[in-house]
Amino acid sequence: MLTAKGAATRERIVLGAAELIRGRGLSVGLDDIRGATSTSKSQLFHYFPDGKADLLLAVARHEAARVLGDQQPHLADLTTWEKWLAWRDRVIEIYDGQRAGCPLSALVSQLATPGAREIITELYEQWHRHLVTGIDALKANGATPAGLDENRAATTILTAVTGGANLLQATGDMTYLETALTDALESLRN
Amino acid sequence: MLTAKGAATRERIVLGAAELIRGRGLSVGLDDIRGATSTSKSQLFHYFPDGKADLLLAVARHEAARVLGDQQPHLADLTTWEKWLAWRDRVIEIYDGQRAGCPLSALVSQLATPGAREIITELYEQWHRHLVTGIDALKANGATPAGLDENRAATTILTAVTGGANLLQATGDMTYLETALTDALESLRN
Repeated sequence: MLTAKGAATRERIVLGAAELIRGRGLSVGLDDIRGATSTSKSQLFHYFPDGKADLLLAVARHEAARVLGDQQPHLADLTTWEKWLAWRDRVIEIYDGQRAGCPLSALVSQLATPGAREIITELYEQWHRHLVTGIDALKANGATPAGLDENRAATTILTAVTGGANLLQATGDMTYLETALTDALESLRN
Repeated sequence: MLTAKGAATRERIVLGAAELIRGRGLSVGLDDIRGATSTSKSQLFHYFPDGKADLLLAVARHEAARVLGDQQPHLADLTTWEKWLAWRDRVIEIYDGQRAGCPLSALVSQLATPGAREIITELYEQWHRHLVTGIDALKANGATPAGLDENRAATTILTAVTGGANLLQATGDMTYLETALTDALESLRN
């Protein structure tokens, strides 16, 4: 267990590393991170015994939390159709600002470890649960078509976001995300 | 212009390089490629004056053609609902066999040049055109809902494939691709 002070120091290193990597990519070295976060070598290895791989995994965990955090307060309050549209607009805005690529994907493809994969799997599962909760709220309001399967619908919506973001990054064209996400949401409407 | 013999030699180098990269990844060096394709250094630089970047771009072009080729004959003959389902099953089969990652994405993210981006953009445009042609054929048979927009529907289907493939690779879970693609195709049905 870390002390409160230890946890704060560790958090400061992770945040500093995340900002550096967002700006300069994965070529950032441990010395750059130590410089930016005023950390000694022994401190760094105290919190991240395996060095860079360890630290990058912590940064990936931070970036995964940020993927959902960036969608708040919308993602936790998908109780009306208007709120779903506001969430859609926020998602489009986020990926529009990230055309150069998602920091988390870059980290995960670099790490390619079971730990990194677990972070991603858990992220999509949490994201999926938020969407299911929102669809259930719409359902409770009687605003959805009869027989709507909230698990399927959430899966289709999440896949539209992922594919749209991916195609935006690959082609520079926003149409995929806008169209696919809007179409996926249509299935929620009565 | 290359002579017929020159074009054949160039093609042999590209195919050999593509196979090596599929098996061993992008760390494959020019010497490995020369060895596997029985090519001299001067031959290699005759066909690929800028060396590895040039050759990788040619391999990316080859892999892009293969993305569509792997979906044939289905993709060029989407004239009935049954044929759309057969295409869906083929797409799922292709990505199921590529869980470790799409060779083209790896190449393109490594190259990160305008030339590589153009290959991807062109690939998605061609793919989109195939889907629009198929939707038009369904429409002509009166098998689609009134007012179906073939461009939008093709965009949503293509985004479901991309997102589903991406999520399969990231999480190992096939549900995203199966569900999102099946749901996207439902919009074509009367």
